Amino acid sequence: MNSPADNNDTATTLESANDDAVLELESDIEEAIVQALEDGDLDRVRDLVAQLHYSDVADLLEHLADDDRDTLIEALQGILDPEVFSELDENVRDDLVAKLGFDYVASAVTEMDTDDAVQVIEELEEHEQKQVLDAIPAGDRTLIEEGLAYPEDSAGRMMQREVMTVPEFWSVGETIDFLREHADGEDAGKASLPDLFYDIFVVDPAHKPGGFVALSRLLRSRRQVAVTDIMSVEMKLIPVEEDQEDVAYLFSQRDLVSAPVVDPDGRLVGVITVDDIVDVIHEEHEEDIMRMGGVREDDLFDAVGATTRARFSWLLLNLGTAILASVIIGFFEATIEQIVALAVLMPIVASMGGNAGTQTLTVTVRALAMKDLTSTNALRVVGKEMLVGSINGVVFAILTGLVAWFWFDSQALGTVIALAMIVNLFIAGLAGTTIPLMLDRYGIDPAIASSVFLTTVTDVVGFAAFLGLAALFLL
Amino acid sequence: MNSPADNNDTATTLESANDDAVLELESDIEEAIVQALEDGDLDRVRDLVAQLHYSDVADLLEHLADDDRDTLIEALQGILDPEVFSELDENVRDDLVAKLGFDYVASAVTEMDTDDAVQVIEELEEHEQKQVLDAIPAGDRTLIEEGLAYPEDSAGRMMQREVMTVPEFWSVGETIDFLREHADGEDAGKASLPDLFYDIFVVDPAHKPGGFVALSRLLRSRRQVAVTDIMSVEMKLIPVEEDQEDVAYLFSQRDLVSAPVVDPDGRLVGVITVDDIVDVIHEEHEEDIMRMGGVREDDLFDAVGATTRARFSWLLLNLGTAILASVIIGFFEATIEQIVALAVLMPIVASMGGNAGTQTLTVTVRALAMKDLTSTNALRVVGKEMLVGSINGVVFAILTGLVAWFWFDSQALGTVIALAMIVNLFIAGLAGTTIPLMLDRYGIDPAIASSVFLTTVTDVVGFAAFLGLAALFLL
Repeated sequence: MNSPADNNDTATTLESANDDAVLELESDIEEAIVQALEDGDLDRVRDLVAQLHYSDVADLLEHLADDDRDTLIEALQGILDPEVFSELDENVRDDLVAKLGFDYVASAVTEMDTDDAVQVIEELEEHEQKQVLDAIPAGDRTLIEEGLAYPEDSAGRMMQREVMTVPEFWSVGETIDFLREHADGEDAGKASLPDLFYDIFVVDPAHKPGGFVALSRLLRSRRQVAVTDIMSVEMKLIPVEEDQEDVAYLFSQRDLVSAPVVDPDGRLVGVITVDDIVDVIHEEHEEDIMRMGGVREDDLFDAVGATTRARFSWLLLNLGTAILASVIIGFFEATIEQIVALAVLMPIVASMGGNAGTQTLTVTVRALAMKDLTSTNALRVVGKEMLVGSINGVVFAILTGLVAWFWFDSQALGTVIALAMIVNLFIAGLAGTTIPLMLDRYGIDPAIASSVFLTTVTDVVGFAAFLGLAALFLL
Repeated sequence: MNSPADNNDTATTLESANDDAVLELESDIEEAIVQALEDGDLDRVRDLVAQLHYSDVADLLEHLADDDRDTLIEALQGILDPEVFSELDENVRDDLVAKLGFDYVASAVTEMDTDDAVQVIEELEEHEQKQVLDAIPAGDRTLIEEGLAYPEDSAGRMMQREVMTVPEFWSVGETIDFLREHADGEDAGKASLPDLFYDIFVVDPAHKPGGFVALSRLLRSRRQVAVTDIMSVEMKLIPVEEDQEDVAYLFSQRDLVSAPVVDPDGRLVGVITVDDIVDVIHEEHEEDIMRMGGVREDDLFDAVGATTRARFSWLLLNLGTAILASVIIGFFEATIEQIVALAVLMPIVASMGGNAGTQTLTVTVRALAMKDLTSTNALRVVGKEMLVGSINGVVFAILTGLVAWFWFDSQALGTVIALAMIVNLFIAGLAGTTIPLMLDRYGIDPAIASSVFLTTVTDVVGFAAFLGLAALFLL
């Protein structure tokens, strides 16, 4: 490298960045650290950790077994980058807080931007919050407490209080001079200049935003140009109470990198940046996936007891619906006693209905989450899914009917299972769309409850249709 | 507003931006447009569409029924913002291409950044690609063709060719002067200056990147400072062949806004920006959710025939596994004939296994996608899930055993179902972790195939354990 790197350290970092495929280096270092921890070579551990980005240190802490993690925390005492804190899974963070003490956490939080600080503190227990806040200098504490006062998952919680604003009468030159004079963001105190920013917001005397200037546009403009001449006025103001999911939708929709947050009077109070949005998108997707899989939240790093308890209620609910299905079957005990082949075949009808319904449900829940399903097209989508269900119902009715006919050498049995299949796949298409739509209308997250309702419907209808038709036509 | 807006239009936009909650305005306008389309008032349609952001126009086109969409396309002929194109769902875009013609598409593509242009063209059919490319000016065409030559879903496809680079010997002042002279990005031709950028890359004479300067840092530095003095050298170079999922992981992990892409010789060839990453994250998550739900891809806007066919193969696979489960039950026909209560109760064991296994599977698949499951902790996770499965197995064994005992007044039947439940929930925990881990090891996406393997295991084990134990102990 020809870069005028002013010490050897920098040069090494640069070289390794060049040699390395994006992700492989980290997992090699991780393995080396685990080895060093096992060898008890703490100096080597510290050397290796120093090569990692703070996000990778957070990942490492999450991946380690409890005793290795304890050793690592001890080895890093005093040199742990506070940024690691904001990247940790909640459980692992609790563990660290307990081991490092509140004073350490308070000093770490003081070094963060307000949005990261709020994010770390909001996840502590209430008494821990108080202890950490008490150990933070008054100025920073006020900003963090203001952040915590906004509703959970709101724009106010996510925003950074440090915003770069300029008055309307400034020129490009004045803006650049101001920035150069306040070059060292830390001198300027909290809530003034952010370390890193992408847009400059133009505010009126009441601190209401009138437009923004992207930095790349500011840099291209001559010194004497007024900021109001180059500012874009087409911008969305995010109310401080806005839900983070809607904020994330806006960012994706508009390809934003930062956006202004305003209080109910329209005054600029903070800015949300895209890195936090990326986290929100991951979080919301995780929630969707977990809920559809019957898990309350990602419990990979939870203890066995907590995981077992968290999953219990879902399984209990499922036991209830399974018993309901059994009760339906119970009504037809006499029928099954006479034709035991019904017991052999009945799970096929229920299972196909469950799977076809889940396909429809997945598409519908996702469409609701992405705001692709509106009053404009809801009826059309329901109609289409019922049609798809009916067509696949007929196709699989024929296939299953033939299987049953040849297996049990009974054309009548084949006909009965075929009819039941058509009924159940039609109902599956109907239930797969209407259940999430109805839950959504009543303000219940369709991801969390749809699938249990759906399988109840497809099991009950599947067993009832098949056994009922059999009782009618085969006895 | 006190802003020096130079015409009434701007002032109106500004006011409405202030009054409006983030998302509500758009859906009101959407409904008004649907109404105007039905009234055949095309002038009003055009007025209303002009108030929408191009992403919202794309959404509107997706939501409309076919005939309304045709009318809208006709109304917008000649005035449709080309950016709308890059935001459309594939099916709807095909429709538009067919209706607007290749010359229109070519002129729209020419106005886009290279990354958006590649994204639009890569999704056309091969003969359409050729026709559109032929209608594009030679310079732009070469850049787009180069982009298309990279593998699908690679960094090369996502990157923008327009990059802001400076030589190592430049100062802050020289950089700003250069930007001011080339203020009008469009004059400078494609592949020189991007419209919007966040970092400046410092390159050596061989065009290898040595570091980057965030614009907010550049703006804070005095004119005479050398760019190499303020550049960060800690940056990740993304190989042009890197998979987009890994690139997205890197962006989330490091909170990046833009990152340099290099060819195999280490030369800077493009830049990836965070707005494309947000799209990739949505796309990858959608793929995960769809695959776990047994849908190949989001088919909300597909025609009935295409949707039916796409879902058919998954249902066929499921029919195979359902028949397999029936075959297992078939082995126990004689047993069921004697104790018909077995037929009533057997779905409970299978269903609970399926649900418990799905919980484990969801957490495991997600952990693999987020790179939270590594060789360091895989064994520990499998062990934990088997333990969770066993504990819940015992709890639900007792519950289900009691239900069966009182329902059929048989303690022996209760004991048999309890034992079967323990076996099946233990196996569900084991299968829920090991199936995705094994698929991942063999390079198969665990999201796509795990659930069918899992339910096969839990159905087969559930029926076999329950009926087998019954045959042993109850006859």
